[in-house]
Amino acid sequence: MKMIRTIMELRQTLAAVRSEGRQIGLVPTMGFLHDGHLSLIRRAAEENSLVVVSIFVNPLQFGPQEDYAAYPRDLPRDCSLAESAGADIVFAPEVEEMYPQASLTYVEIAVLGDELCGRSRPGHFRGVCTVVSKLLHIVQPERAYFGRKDAQQLAIIQRMAEDLNFPVQIVPVPICREPDGLAMSSRNSYLSPEERSQARVLFRALRESEQAFAAGERESRVFQARIKELIEQIPGTQIDYIEICATQTLQPVEQIDHQALLALAVRFGRTRLIDNCLLTEEK
Amino acid sequence: MKMIRTIMELRQTLAAVRSEGRQIGLVPTMGFLHDGHLSLIRRAAEENSLVVVSIFVNPLQFGPQEDYAAYPRDLPRDCSLAESAGADIVFAPEVEEMYPQASLTYVEIAVLGDELCGRSRPGHFRGVCTVVSKLLHIVQPERAYFGRKDAQQLAIIQRMAEDLNFPVQIVPVPICREPDGLAMSSRNSYLSPEERSQARVLFRALRESEQAFAAGERESRVFQARIKELIEQIPGTQIDYIEICATQTLQPVEQIDHQALLALAVRFGRTRLIDNCLLTEEK
Repeated sequence: MKMIRTIMELRQTLAAVRSEGRQIGLVPTMGFLHDGHLSLIRRAAEENSLVVVSIFVNPLQFGPQEDYAAYPRDLPRDCSLAESAGADIVFAPEVEEMYPQASLTYVEIAVLGDELCGRSRPGHFRGVCTVVSKLLHIVQPERAYFGRKDAQQLAIIQRMAEDLNFPVQIVPVPICREPDGLAMSSRNSYLSPEERSQARVLFRALRESEQAFAAGERESRVFQARIKELIEQIPGTQIDYIEICATQTLQPVEQIDHQALLALAVRFGRTRLIDNCLLTEEK
Repeated sequence: MKMIRTIMELRQTLAAVRSEGRQIGLVPTMGFLHDGHLSLIRRAAEENSLVVVSIFVNPLQFGPQEDYAAYPRDLPRDCSLAESAGADIVFAPEVEEMYPQASLTYVEIAVLGDELCGRSRPGHFRGVCTVVSKLLHIVQPERAYFGRKDAQQLAIIQRMAEDLNFPVQIVPVPICREPDGLAMSSRNSYLSPEERSQARVLFRALRESEQAFAAGERESRVFQARIKELIEQIPGTQIDYIEICATQTLQPVEQIDHQALLALAVRFGRTRLIDNCLLTEEK
């Protein structure tokens, strides 16, 4: 496996790959890889003849009060994990390589970016869309892989790719969970042992909601009330949102038709975690 | 020459071209081609083995009070002109093909888009950046050609391509002028014979400014005052702007260092024309 730090070297390497007719898969990450990322990489390795994993903590998608500086980083470990999962190239640019001058250009998404996490993280999805656009232009992959844990990000990237006719297939990959159900996230490393234990409530809330849905419940406010009750039993938690919304537009629904996205964002101490599931009759 | 109406057919045709290792040049236009466009096409034909001319009057870049509906269109004539200049493919999609659903995604440019034409045409450059992004993703050309008459558009597209790492070379092409100096523009067709004659003042103002610059004048306000005087002698004209600004950032300069862009926008009756020249010591 090759580690590349500059756009020019990556472009040259990939031009050679492309001229051999090989298909390229891109897995964009912020590093500190966990099994969720590795499942994206393994999927990309199955479907493409060359896999690029980008590792870049993108300052543009962090708010001024957010955890950009503290975000966990471990490039040597990431490289060996990525290689073990089937990556051919790790692209790990410095900030100055990705933003040699202040970017004046932004890729903005209306409506979808304002809901859910967009409410407490203004500018976040603009930063995501902009850096993903840059990475797609640099790597020019046939396919790019995104995890379903970031459901809003996935819906936004899919819509961006459609609206702007990006010549890429966006491939969603299922959430990876710890044995006790907690969705894997680089931010789980922030949790104290007590918070880590408390955070299991997210999965419990999702599982109970799936059961209630299977039993016929369709009123969003009923799901929301039950989840609120579950989470508020735990001291030190703070609910950011409990939302039931349309899967593509992310607009809130009051009554679930045949399917909807149930999405949660909750703070455990200072750590904000998100999780979600699809409530669907199609299972 | 081939005329293509759908994105899918264009992509399939170009994939075959690309697999033969042929380089693609894109000339994005709104049609009603004149010699200015043809010089872009000829330049593209010299530098690439296949030239795509897109003809699309992009509703996204017109304000509600602007001339979207009235914008001149003549596709059969455009096709024969494009072919004569060396185009291999004319891509002429319907609006529904380019925007099958309301676009939620926009490519925005800060600072550069707010100056000059941006002041009187809010949202215009957002529309331009968005449709050019779409065309670049659809065609994936090695090179894309833009005329210097739309100096602000050129500066913006160059900056967008840099900021977002578009894998394309943006090629600027000199302004084409009528024998009496009027810059070629599809909007010249709106002018009455009298307005057409009056519009020569734009070139006269630029030429006099170049002479004053060559003679040592460097104060922006001196250029601006002289041009204002020239234009205001003509009844029925309305000055939108007379601006002297930095070539890349488009920020106004008071005193010209070694070069600056002189840009004009003036209404003759109901028709708004733009023109510009580079005031430079490097000639």
